Amino acid sequence: MRSVLLTLCLVLSAAATMTAQERPPQLGDQIDREALLDLISRDRLRAHHDLAAGVPHPAGSPADQKLSAQFAGLFRDFGAEVEVHEIWPCLAFPKKASLSLTSPLKLELDLQEKALSEDPDSRHPELGIGWNAYSASGAAEGQVVYANQGRKEDFEELRKLGVDCRGKIVIARYGGNYRGFKWKFAEEAGAIGLVIYTDPADTGWRRGLSWPEGGWANGTSIQRGSILTLPYAGDPLTPGTCASRDARRLDTETVDFPRIPVQPIGWTAAQEILGRMRGEQVPNAWQGGLPFRYRLTGGSELEVRVEVQQERRLAKTFNIVATIPAREKKAPYVVFGSHHDAWTFGAGDPAAGVMTVLEAARVFGAAAKRGWRPEVGLVFALWGAEEHGIIGSTEWVESREAELKERCLAYVNLDMAAMGMNLRASSSPSLKDVLARAAAALPAPRDPKRTLLQTWRARSQDKDDASLPRTGVLGGGSDHVAFLARCGVACAAISAGGSRGSSYHSNYDGLSWYRQIVGDDYRSGELVTRMVVSLAWEFATRPQGVLRPERQGAATGRHLAALRQKARDRELLVDADLLGRFRRVEAQFARFGEEMRRLRESRMEASESEENAAAKARALAQFDRAWLDESGLPTRPWYRNLYAAPDEDSGYAAWMLPALRRAVEKGRAADLAVELNRLEQTLERLTEARKAYEKLLPPAPKTSN
Amino acid sequence: MRSVLLTLCLVLSAAATMTAQERPPQLGDQIDREALLDLISRDRLRAHHDLAAGVPHPAGSPADQKLSAQFAGLFRDFGAEVEVHEIWPCLAFPKKASLSLTSPLKLELDLQEKALSEDPDSRHPELGIGWNAYSASGAAEGQVVYANQGRKEDFEELRKLGVDCRGKIVIARYGGNYRGFKWKFAEEAGAIGLVIYTDPADTGWRRGLSWPEGGWANGTSIQRGSILTLPYAGDPLTPGTCASRDARRLDTETVDFPRIPVQPIGWTAAQEILGRMRGEQVPNAWQGGLPFRYRLTGGSELEVRVEVQQERRLAKTFNIVATIPAREKKAPYVVFGSHHDAWTFGAGDPAAGVMTVLEAARVFGAAAKRGWRPEVGLVFALWGAEEHGIIGSTEWVESREAELKERCLAYVNLDMAAMGMNLRASSSPSLKDVLARAAAALPAPRDPKRTLLQTWRARSQDKDDASLPRTGVLGGGSDHVAFLARCGVACAAISAGGSRGSSYHSNYDGLSWYRQIVGDDYRSGELVTRMVVSLAWEFATRPQGVLRPERQGAATGRHLAALRQKARDRELLVDADLLGRFRRVEAQFARFGEEMRRLRESRMEASESEENAAAKARALAQFDRAWLDESGLPTRPWYRNLYAAPDEDSGYAAWMLPALRRAVEKGRAADLAVELNRLEQTLERLTEARKAYEKLLPPAPKTSN
Repeated sequence: MRSVLLTLCLVLSAAATMTAQERPPQLGDQIDREALLDLISRDRLRAHHDLAAGVPHPAGSPADQKLSAQFAGLFRDFGAEVEVHEIWPCLAFPKKASLSLTSPLKLELDLQEKALSEDPDSRHPELGIGWNAYSASGAAEGQVVYANQGRKEDFEELRKLGVDCRGKIVIARYGGNYRGFKWKFAEEAGAIGLVIYTDPADTGWRRGLSWPEGGWANGTSIQRGSILTLPYAGDPLTPGTCASRDARRLDTETVDFPRIPVQPIGWTAAQEILGRMRGEQVPNAWQGGLPFRYRLTGGSELEVRVEVQQERRLAKTFNIVATIPAREKKAPYVVFGSHHDAWTFGAGDPAAGVMTVLEAARVFGAAAKRGWRPEVGLVFALWGAEEHGIIGSTEWVESREAELKERCLAYVNLDMAAMGMNLRASSSPSLKDVLARAAAALPAPRDPKRTLLQTWRARSQDKDDASLPRTGVLGGGSDHVAFLARCGVACAAISAGGSRGSSYHSNYDGLSWYRQIVGDDYRSGELVTRMVVSLAWEFATRPQGVLRPERQGAATGRHLAALRQKARDRELLVDADLLGRFRRVEAQFARFGEEMRRLRESRMEASESEENAAAKARALAQFDRAWLDESGLPTRPWYRNLYAAPDEDSGYAAWMLPALRRAVEKGRAADLAVELNRLEQTLERLTEARKAYEKLLPPAPKTSN
Repeated sequence: MRSVLLTLCLVLSAAATMTAQERPPQLGDQIDREALLDLISRDRLRAHHDLAAGVPHPAGSPADQKLSAQFAGLFRDFGAEVEVHEIWPCLAFPKKASLSLTSPLKLELDLQEKALSEDPDSRHPELGIGWNAYSASGAAEGQVVYANQGRKEDFEELRKLGVDCRGKIVIARYGGNYRGFKWKFAEEAGAIGLVIYTDPADTGWRRGLSWPEGGWANGTSIQRGSILTLPYAGDPLTPGTCASRDARRLDTETVDFPRIPVQPIGWTAAQEILGRMRGEQVPNAWQGGLPFRYRLTGGSELEVRVEVQQERRLAKTFNIVATIPAREKKAPYVVFGSHHDAWTFGAGDPAAGVMTVLEAARVFGAAAKRGWRPEVGLVFALWGAEEHGIIGSTEWVESREAELKERCLAYVNLDMAAMGMNLRASSSPSLKDVLARAAAALPAPRDPKRTLLQTWRARSQDKDDASLPRTGVLGGGSDHVAFLARCGVACAAISAGGSRGSSYHSNYDGLSWYRQIVGDDYRSGELVTRMVVSLAWEFATRPQGVLRPERQGAATGRHLAALRQKARDRELLVDADLLGRFRRVEAQFARFGEEMRRLRESRMEASESEENAAAKARALAQFDRAWLDESGLPTRPWYRNLYAAPDEDSGYAAWMLPALRRAVEKGRAADLAVELNRLEQTLERLTEARKAYEKLLPPAPKTSN
């Protein structure tokens, strides 16, 4: 059992000087990328991890507040300037819950993970039941309907099959969409309660051995998680403004919170319900991994009662934002961040990211202590209340939008980053090159004759350019959202995966699980921190060479072509004018990309020279801002970025060119013209950005002909 | 419970006159395709089915012998000439078996399906335990190794993983190969016994509801089946000659029968073993559908004992071969057949085919009774002992190879044919057109405005010609094998599937199962019989227009191109000469196809005219004979057809151009030249066949230029 005293010792050891035994390398006179990389210490990463995942600390809890203060102290010790950003969002807190069969027998189902002798963390006294934050409070009792993953199409299928959800308790498995949409569609279909469970088709024996023998879920593992499904990120009561203590707030009655009780469970409990259902069998794609045929309905013999009691109230939580200041006071900056709040211990989510943020800050802080100054500010942020609804980062962004648009070059998210040895990233197009360059400067962790870039690219290549590794696209789901959607900041998310297991949002997400499954050697944390330090070094030393707006041309062209094909398949492009316009916009984006590429190539030296470095970097960032449209996305005005947003029907995937995509998905031919028009305006803004950038370069040399 | 008396009544009702209530249609004066199709009776199909699947009747049993006599009587009543072909193959008979855990506890496992109150067939007193015919007799006891599907690559994977099968009892799931290869590879790996089980990943709850609620396997369903794995089909003791009573036979000691006990079980029994295994976990692809992680080894705590006692002895069984004779005595003929022996009742396998053979014979018999005579003989055959090793049909073929090569136009297999409403076929290339033509003459069963061809083709199209439906390729596995492999007879297999379930080789394969799952209305049997009658009509009336040798050109070209690609991938074609030769042979086959197509098109009328119809049909059949090579396939000289054979490493798939394919698969560059040479010789024989065929056509009209 991890005592408070033990935790305190760990904190002290992390925050204070290291013991002699650990012998951390010292920074010498030469401050360069190699010297900084050499400073990264796996012992330190472990100590950061001990601190960040030692106790359960959900947002708004006393442990969360105490930990925030400890992080601030640690950052200060590292030599950074620290802002402790206090916010007062509306958070949810569990009070009690129960789930039981009431017919054909009385049977109370377990709502908490089994405490295991092999896993001391699992026996921590502050651990509680599984819950979905912002569930309605109340009780519901009735017959059961199985709704597969509770996606829009699953409820449509139920309707087609003649299954009535009205007055029923819906049971749905995790997966296929963001969990918030499950209650949304269930409620629309008339359900009075929702039970969400983890199906072994997606984890457990289908993937490997269960915890504690292996890393995958066992029958009692429960996935906690927020079920907010609002058309904006952040505090539910203060969209668009910071949730400061005295902020103006929405009336909670006007906010679209869940109106039915929602309870997550593990499959051992779910089996007690699913295994007793007696209705028609499910379509094959709905069959999960439990050893019986799944049914659509439970029948009248089977009744279930679910009761959830939660409190929703304003609560204090913190963003802790540490800066290694640039040489110049008003220089641009880059932000690296991970949230710090966790449903339980959060050894994986988020502390596998927190430790890399802390260690990168420590390394650059050590340089700053010796007087070194980056060309741009290096900001290391630990956000609060991400789990409740990406709250901390959003409120921070909302408190300084104008300044961010002016100065923020990029945001790099590190949520849950060190979970294995296979590096991957999602990224805005303009950051693809610098990610590759940062990886090219590092040896591959298990193959030192090759670079990290080579092994990464060997796993998968970029679609447009085989010299780059493949990077995913960014939608919603973590702390980059407000940067991207509100301020048009180029974003990336870096992580390393490939470990055999998942303790996601469960009581098993502790240090025991992490060290047994991801590894006790902290090589994953080291890998990610090296990547972060290498990337930060690029920003710190050559900010004028980081952002590559020409990448937007090819990427946008590809997204447009895919949407044009989809629109044709749906017969939305029968109007030859519209089709012609579609092709014209595609061609314009291609031309923009090509012009930018030529500009860079012909004036390489000028663009890369140190002259006006900060101004050039700021000017390059304006290309990403060009995607912002103040009127926002249809039905989601909070989202202003026309380049990317979360999928509006599942919250699961990224939608590229989301306003245009919506017109295609919803089959609105009239909206297509409107949205193509907005993209043409975006192109005009991109052209403005190009002109402004060109002005910063010395006059082009005259060429013959 | 189905009594013997009841069965007898059913037999009498089928064989004798129909009751007034049934009012079968009568054949009028006009004998044409429509009139024959109108004769097909679903009541008759049901009566045939009652006869063919009323009692358990494995090959060599008294029930099998009695049923053979009844079929002969029925065919005679229909007006056909009947040959009762008695053979004496070496068959296997179960005596007793047991499977038990001996450690960590004593536990006897069930080896027979549960008798069900909902399924009267399942309570038949003559039903017995599950068994694999030709298993060694003896007992083995030891620790357990799980070998996935017991494929060659599975045992290779076990070796790589360091798992030693020596002295162990291997447990493997059905699927992935012909079951005979499972013991072969297990024995090679040193196993002392083999347990084969049905995994719910392939049936049961993953596919739908289990019997008796639905049609899929339940936990006690056992797949019986032969495990002979010899380099020839038919009686194991008389390869190449007929197993007549006094035939010369191999010494059984020289025959490669299994040397370890092999026992099939259901998953309820298998779970008692698999669920107690404690070794390393399996690779993900090996995980089956049971609700725990599968393990490679059981560990030393778990011991299993398997004992199998069987008898192998010569036993009498019959082929019943009915002929509607042609107008001319020595005319060519076409054979339609299904085996009649069954592991249990065989309501699906084979009686869903037997009923269609009987009904088609009855229809053409009615025409013959009115004096109608086809242009070629129509032969309807019910084969014995297919289940033990494709024995009856093979022995029949081996008793008359010369005559078959001379006169047999085609063999159409109908094993288990009427299992649903989705028509499909596998076929030699030369029969693709006539299959399409037969289907074009029929309305689609559920969509009478369209033809059967249209709905069939809408499901999937031929790769070479979009006017044709897709037909599969034929390898081994049923009664076409000897026709194809020994005599170069063009073969097809017709069936209709799509029912939701499978009772394959289990005690549940009775009339109760069939009527609940495939249907009680015999529309599937009607569909297949209509297709058979329509196809037979094509042979009977226009035999000169049936076979289309030009189809061999494109098909062979495609198979050669695929093998060339595979050979290049394996770096077997580094020699430019060999590559050139490969391309040359491909070009020659393409040219042959093109020449044949032009010949047909330019001399359409001559080729289709009724003059010399039988001789032309016979000459066309010689194109399929051209693929025969007396020296046979490498290591399998019994197989003489260079166009197609069963896959030699799994028995599961068809190998096209099998001798060449083997050279590619085994990486023998030297053999490639040899086999390309044999294909060039085949081309020469095809050219000979073309010349012989052309001679039968009237002189070509002179064309200008």
